[in-house]
Amino acid sequence: MNKVKAGIIGATGYAGVELVRLLTSHPYAEIAAVSSVSYDGKKLSEVYPNLKKIADHELENADAVIEKCDVIFASLPHGLSEPLAEQCLAKGKLLIDLGADFRMYDEEAYSAWYKRPYSHPELHKYAKYCLPELYRDDVKKAKIIGNPGCYPTSVALACAPALKNGLVKTEGIIIDSKSGVTGAGRNPTQGTHYPDTNEAFSAYKAGEHRHTPEIEQTLSDIAGSEVKITFVPHLLPVNRGIESTVYLNLCDGVTKEQVVEAYEKAYADELFVRMEPLGSYANIKNVRMSNYCDISLHFDMRNNRLIVCSVIDNMVKGAAGQAIQNMNIYFGYDEGTGLMMAPQEF
Amino acid sequence: MNKVKAGIIGATGYAGVELVRLLTSHPYAEIAAVSSVSYDGKKLSEVYPNLKKIADHELENADAVIEKCDVIFASLPHGLSEPLAEQCLAKGKLLIDLGADFRMYDEEAYSAWYKRPYSHPELHKYAKYCLPELYRDDVKKAKIIGNPGCYPTSVALACAPALKNGLVKTEGIIIDSKSGVTGAGRNPTQGTHYPDTNEAFSAYKAGEHRHTPEIEQTLSDIAGSEVKITFVPHLLPVNRGIESTVYLNLCDGVTKEQVVEAYEKAYADELFVRMEPLGSYANIKNVRMSNYCDISLHFDMRNNRLIVCSVIDNMVKGAAGQAIQNMNIYFGYDEGTGLMMAPQEF
Amino acid sequence: MNKVKAGIIGATGYAGVELVRLLTSHPYAEIAAVSSVSYDGKKLSEVYPNLKKIADHELENADAVIEKCDVIFASLPHGLSEPLAEQCLAKGKLLIDLGADFRMYDEEAYSAWYKRPYSHPELHKYAKYCLPELYRDDVKKAKIIGNPGCYPTSVALACAPALKNGLVKTEGIIIDSKSGVTGAGRNPTQGTHYPDTNEAFSAYKAGEHRHTPEIEQTLSDIAGSEVKITFVPHLLPVNRGIESTVYLNLCDGVTKEQVVEAYEKAYADELFVRMEPLGSYANIKNVRMSNYCDISLHFDMRNNRLIVCSVIDNMVKGAAGQAIQNMNIYFGYDEGTGLMMAPQEF
Amino acid sequence: MNKVKAGIIGATGYAGVELVRLLTSHPYAEIAAVSSVSYDGKKLSEVYPNLKKIADHELENADAVIEKCDVIFASLPHGLSEPLAEQCLAKGKLLIDLGADFRMYDEEAYSAWYKRPYSHPELHKYAKYCLPELYRDDVKKAKIIGNPGCYPTSVALACAPALKNGLVKTEGIIIDSKSGVTGAGRNPTQGTHYPDTNEAFSAYKAGEHRHTPEIEQTLSDIAGSEVKITFVPHLLPVNRGIESTVYLNLCDGVTKEQVVEAYEKAYADELFVRMEPLGSYANIKNVRMSNYCDISLHFDMRNNRLIVCSVIDNMVKGAAGQAIQNMNIYFGYDEGTGLMMAPQEF
Repeated sequence: MNKVKAGIIGATGYAGVELVRLLTSHPYAEIAAVSSVSYDGKKLSEVYPNLKKIADHELENADAVIEKCDVIFASLPHGLSEPLAEQCLAKGKLLIDLGADFRMYDEEAYSAWYKRPYSHPELHKYAKYCLPELYRDDVKKAKIIGNPGCYPTSVALACAPALKNGLVKTEGIIIDSKSGVTGAGRNPTQGTHYPDTNEAFSAYKAGEHRHTPEIEQTLSDIAGSEVKITFVPHLLPVNRGIESTVYLNLCDGVTKEQVVEAYEKAYADELFVRMEPLGSYANIKNVRMSNYCDISLHFDMRNNRLIVCSVIDNMVKGAAGQAIQNMNIYFGYDEGTGLMMAPQEF
Repeated sequence: MNKVKAGIIGATGYAGVELVRLLTSHPYAEIAAVSSVSYDGKKLSEVYPNLKKIADHELENADAVIEKCDVIFASLPHGLSEPLAEQCLAKGKLLIDLGADFRMYDEEAYSAWYKRPYSHPELHKYAKYCLPELYRDDVKKAKIIGNPGCYPTSVALACAPALKNGLVKTEGIIIDSKSGVTGAGRNPTQGTHYPDTNEAFSAYKAGEHRHTPEIEQTLSDIAGSEVKITFVPHLLPVNRGIESTVYLNLCDGVTKEQVVEAYEKAYADELFVRMEPLGSYANIKNVRMSNYCDISLHFDMRNNRLIVCSVIDNMVKGAAGQAIQNMNIYFGYDEGTGLMMAPQEF
Repeated sequence: MNKVKAGIIGATGYAGVELVRLLTSHPYAEIAAVSSVSYDGKKLSEVYPNLKKIADHELENADAVIEKCDVIFASLPHGLSEPLAEQCLAKGKLLIDLGADFRMYDEEAYSAWYKRPYSHPELHKYAKYCLPELYRDDVKKAKIIGNPGCYPTSVALACAPALKNGLVKTEGIIIDSKSGVTGAGRNPTQGTHYPDTNEAFSAYKAGEHRHTPEIEQTLSDIAGSEVKITFVPHLLPVNRGIESTVYLNLCDGVTKEQVVEAYEKAYADELFVRMEPLGSYANIKNVRMSNYCDISLHFDMRNNRLIVCSVIDNMVKGAAGQAIQNMNIYFGYDEGTGLMMAPQEF
Repeated sequence: MNKVKAGIIGATGYAGVELVRLLTSHPYAEIAAVSSVSYDGKKLSEVYPNLKKIADHELENADAVIEKCDVIFASLPHGLSEPLAEQCLAKGKLLIDLGADFRMYDEEAYSAWYKRPYSHPELHKYAKYCLPELYRDDVKKAKIIGNPGCYPTSVALACAPALKNGLVKTEGIIIDSKSGVTGAGRNPTQGTHYPDTNEAFSAYKAGEHRHTPEIEQTLSDIAGSEVKITFVPHLLPVNRGIESTVYLNLCDGVTKEQVVEAYEKAYADELFVRMEPLGSYANIKNVRMSNYCDISLHFDMRNNRLIVCSVIDNMVKGAAGQAIQNMNIYFGYDEGTGLMMAPQEF
């Protein structure tokens, strides 16, 4: 079997290099080209010495990547993927975009939060928002895959069964998320300088984070009516992982058993979603270096409230792993191909 | 001026040794005796080598501490402070209890959450719950001081101005708190074993934590009507610090300005509460090793919601520092005596 | 091809569970049985929730493991592997012992440091000390494989080319090593309690660590004359990784170039040893979750001294990964089978 | 009593802000002015929010600081302190320089390692290298105080009693040091970006660190003959603290008892040096946030070697605390004034 030629644009960013790491173990894909604006001409393993003898590819430019590859993963700041998409479409190549440009179906919502209009509005009809567990069928229909954001992945999987089954109200949803520092990217800043981040903890962008409209798009779609959320992310002094604690108001008369059953049923056949036994808590340490999402359910019946804790590795299920999962589906491989490694236990 | 003789029962626990550390710098108090069930006969500095040449006191038993001291700090598991209180009262000595036994005014609420009745119900009329910023006048009236819990301190200070001024509704209050590992105490467990805790994060006791009724007692008292909360704590991989993110529903028509003004006014004269400028976030790193509580205000006006972030050092303002603050008030010293050290910046 | 049936005795210890994690990705081995004294009857994934849906094996006893498997990995405190070895030998099954019992060729050295004689001295003639890069040929000759200790692996690979080529003196070798906390095992202790370990650092067992004779055995063998070392380990506040900084006295007239050449040549064909370019430093972060050993060379020519820095993942190349590498060699698989995953970059 | 007016040039660097933090608790000094090139015009507490309500001083320029203050602390990159010294001398003000410019008595050694000649060679006769425990008498004689470097402080105190008493040889001294990340300063770099530093460890500048000649100057002076060392620093993933493990060759016939006695005697009256009991290890966690140096002695008698472990808080005893200790001596205050706080226990 011929391997699919995979290329990564933005390969020295954190999501980019995670794609490299994961693809080096993929049996049906080979990394055919990688690019980086900042390190053009260098070897990838000079930037990431962990990849020495493993991914010594020379960093080229984006055009070369598109030329040489069948599937192009782009991991770029928002606004930069639309022109790439145009090139990929023209050459009949699949773009899996890990940025924000192709996640929203509503340009107005996109531009309200990202403060720019689409540069190529005509392309968006070819794009699908592909969170496989919720929109698996859309993957094969896409020419451009909008790969979900990290926080939205953890939140959508946490809420979907309850909303889809009408077990919780669409009002009053509160999401308190915490992300490891890799979520802030590779660029050194004062806020991610070790002595500033270590032994520190705070919220940021409370009620203002750009993942808000993406979360609302998905939850509204699942619920079948408009959902507005309050979303507050926090910076967690760990390298990897996102934990989202979601507060949902149970509909009148809904029992714990109904909720548990709905979640168990929704995820029974999902390769990458694991329900915690009641009384256990989803912990980021159990999903590190893997594509799993672990979910635990908790009840505050004094207030008729469901509390869902959901954890992912922000760099794997929240970015590169999910992108490869989408690639697998698109090309007809088993969904877990190259992604079944056991999570790091410590 | 004669120094007050201070004693610590449970001096080798984390709150106990923090009391020792802070009292060694107090100009008007001297540590006259310390006790520890586990290390009776040893020197304190053998258990805590950081205290070598500083607090080489021999660990005695509780009776000796009560005998020798004017003020007794007790830092013990719940249920053990009531008998001590009886002894202290009998000898006319002040007990500052860092445990849970004297925090609740309602025995029913206490026994519902702590699963035991009071052993000495008659003592509780001498006890006051002393969170100085909210109940300063009660401190001098107390013969037994119920020192607030760590989470409740961070939450009560976060909510008080909004509730007291009727700016937020009493329904739908959600509190998402995160605590450093010292909050779990000194006893080694699997859950606090370094490789299990490092690079890990999860909720625990969601909706079930024993600080819930203490928080509800205070918020109800401030609001003037019953308040029920959903409270979910999380274990944070840092040594010190609590961050509470509190979600409150604004009353109709309430503006940001009104909220900001209410908080600024409430805490203008408070030595240990600092309001962050708008746009900044309260961060545990700014209060470590100090008695400060930093508070920041955020608004999600799309959902008419106030988000308050509040941080303390769980071992200082959340335990030992606040206890000394209460001691200072009780004995008529300046409230900040021995507590004005600048927080650790890194 | 039939998969080899692998069993793990002591599967809930850190090295044991790491074997499980790695073997779940091995194409030619299957985990046929696992045992644990502490958790007999439980599922492995109840003890390690990261393994849910991946390794839900029930924990049995050691006899069952030996009965059902072709190769038995034992990860036990010293003194417990000799009786197991007897059983395995009797049944013609390969024992790969990750403990200390079969690492020494000299019983006297073993008993001097481990304070016990061999219980089964007659078994030791079937045992080989198998550090593949140095003793590859011995692996196939062994019936009992003594898998090297973590520190000795990092040190032997750091020193071998210099000693073998007579570039450094055998006197005055000083080894300053630092190990992540998983090296201390899974059992919670005061010294590995998160608040005691985090933001802490110290040496331990200076000049007294039991890996000393194992290191000396290998260095002496390589040098062809007795080598005595000073070895000081330190506890490093990270989960995984060992760094050894080794100080060696250059023989008169030896040049940098000779040293570099000797190392490059020694490891040119080694799958799992990577030489850093001159000027770079071996860093534990580049080998985490992998079987690599990275080595960097530094020179203090003012003192005619070679400084070698060597890093491994203590749980992989320092334990479970090397054990699988030995299994691969023994059974004639490619040496890197199941071990070629790229190291974690963050 | 009039307070001494203290000024800090470079107040927003890590050593600078640590001076601020410590001086706010000093009973006989007041911070009269602070400067920062990067933040001129801002408030110090805007840069360091932990100092809000505590040190809200406006950042001025260096001239203003010299003008307004009696003692000027400078914490600047090397090469910038000589012109300041000229100004201070001209105005009769004491300069305590935390940089490298006034630590070396030998210009040749300085320029060999710092790659620049002195710009003001004539000033150096007024300067003294002031490590109080070794050169207390020099403090009062200085007009310019060269405050010791962090690594040299930990190493000199570790070696002095052994060298001074002729118990160890001057050859073959090896120093393996590990420093917390604050040692790398406040400026964000790739190497100190949280995900690059966390769970990482490596050596750097092996045999090339600029603290080498400073260490050799002191050890040679103590030994009374030239001492050359091999010095290898490592970056430790903690905020604060330096641990130095020093390997020394015992002179023939020297006993453990002699060594222990020499250290006990040397430091018996020192306020800030604490000897660990035999069998205990100096740990950075026991000195954080304090001016203490803890020292432990270990023996490898198989190799006739003394191993000394020494720990300090790199920002306190290794920088700001020692500078204040020097100020106290110079002005005739008790040496520990403002520095007697107990170390952070967790």
